[in-house]
Amino acid sequence: MIIDRLIEKIRTTENPSVAGLDTDFSYLPEETRQKCKTARDAAKAITEFNQKIIDELCGFVPAVKVQIAYYEIFGADGIQSFADTLAYAKSKGMITIADAKRNDIGSTAAAYAKAYLGESAAFAADFLTVNGYLGSDGINPFIDECKKNDRGIFVLVKTSNKGSGELQDLTLGSGEKVYQKMSSLTADLGKDFIGKHGYSAVGAVVGATHPAQAAEIRAAYKNLFFLVPGYGTQGGTAKDLAPCFDGKGGGAIVNSSRGIICAYKEAKFKGMSPEKAAREAAQIMKKDLNGGIL
Amino acid sequence: MIIDRLIEKIRTTENPSVAGLDTDFSYLPEETRQKCKTARDAAKAITEFNQKIIDELCGFVPAVKVQIAYYEIFGADGIQSFADTLAYAKSKGMITIADAKRNDIGSTAAAYAKAYLGESAAFAADFLTVNGYLGSDGINPFIDECKKNDRGIFVLVKTSNKGSGELQDLTLGSGEKVYQKMSSLTADLGKDFIGKHGYSAVGAVVGATHPAQAAEIRAAYKNLFFLVPGYGTQGGTAKDLAPCFDGKGGGAIVNSSRGIICAYKEAKFKGMSPEKAAREAAQIMKKDLNGGIL
Repeated sequence: MIIDRLIEKIRTTENPSVAGLDTDFSYLPEETRQKCKTARDAAKAITEFNQKIIDELCGFVPAVKVQIAYYEIFGADGIQSFADTLAYAKSKGMITIADAKRNDIGSTAAAYAKAYLGESAAFAADFLTVNGYLGSDGINPFIDECKKNDRGIFVLVKTSNKGSGELQDLTLGSGEKVYQKMSSLTADLGKDFIGKHGYSAVGAVVGATHPAQAAEIRAAYKNLFFLVPGYGTQGGTAKDLAPCFDGKGGGAIVNSSRGIICAYKEAKFKGMSPEKAAREAAQIMKKDLNGGIL
Repeated sequence: MIIDRLIEKIRTTENPSVAGLDTDFSYLPEETRQKCKTARDAAKAITEFNQKIIDELCGFVPAVKVQIAYYEIFGADGIQSFADTLAYAKSKGMITIADAKRNDIGSTAAAYAKAYLGESAAFAADFLTVNGYLGSDGINPFIDECKKNDRGIFVLVKTSNKGSGELQDLTLGSGEKVYQKMSSLTADLGKDFIGKHGYSAVGAVVGATHPAQAAEIRAAYKNLFFLVPGYGTQGGTAKDLAPCFDGKGGGAIVNSSRGIICAYKEAKFKGMSPEKAAREAAQIMKKDLNGGIL
């Protein structure tokens, strides 16, 4: 199962991190940007930028997360870059996460599921992020496709942003908080889809910026694997991350996007190419995570 | 403001309906489908199918809603069809709603906002549907772009599916339900963005299948314009819709997708082309809505 393969890859690389290819055009070096006259040029430049970074990371970073918003900006050309980036990462042996936070019902959710998780998906990814506000009939069509084609999803449970509590932290009449209800809904939907390492291919997005909530969810739902945004640029530290893990260094994978792909803009990596700086930053992140968790 | 233009167009056409171009490839006539050998062929066939329907409807249906999932299935070619369909509807004077239920935070939400609502958006639409589970920092970047470029959004409040209550109908400690909280959050975010007809360009998605909840939200939030899915194929009737409206036939627009674009498959429209049957079905819907609401 894909969740087992992800866990095994994390173990082999000793690295529970995922590189976020949230490649905004403005992140590219100025000389590259200046050469781009059309949307197609920009999209191609983004693909090439990503490919060089993937080449550097694929040996020791188990997964990439590709955030579609930055590609949609460039229309159909950008979407081609999104698809090409996912395919390239896969060809280099990385586990791929399409971060698209898709959500809908019935035949529409089924269409999204086919586009990302289908047998001949246009944007084939191993995992897709999903927003569960619509309830289980908004999540089940994705799980159906996962079961058919050995894929997985991560459902938004407790997001990393400051305002996530406005809705997610509200207490229900039952005493549960909204994010706890979303956790239990997610765990329930994934309960017959658990791999040999004890984790379900239906996982949860839990922000690094909310360690207390992460600890609660971790304790309550042993089978829920976490995709953790919010490390680095968003303010989450390795210490904040510890509660996301299961005590044996398992159960979660931590994303960093700008911290890796924009590393070359930092003073300490001055003079390095984007991909070499990304490699350095990803190595530092690996050490930091291992120090904080284990 | 765009919300005023939508309302004025509804008044001029005396038709509070929106045609949903959720054009799944399987909805196309068999002889058309058989000619399609590649994703590009399929995407082009979908665009042409949509264009013929738009030609028939643009004189008396104020708006189209284009659901991106059915286009994502065909990758970059499908996405081009999505963009072309929106552009064609706009060129024919229709108000356009991109139904993409986008959601994210910070720079990612801003990237989505630019892709759909930006000055030179790749998928330029007058309105975009948005999922607010992440809280106001997941909605504000969209509103910022709306203010810059005179666009609008519809935030998912109470969706039309059977399972929508699993999360949305839960009662909070405050006594409010989750969908009521989402209504108040949405109304709040749109409160300084109200047009001359009293409605905000930050509207709400409220399903036709839940009339009691619609009545409550309508009564509590006078400035909230509703986009109403769930009519027709999903089971909502004109009678169910009445509570969505403000007593003067205003305040809401009702979507029908399969009821219009798949009308040619119904026995009563036998022998008609898809676009002629769509025209008939849309005329019947208009009468039905006016009978039910006024």
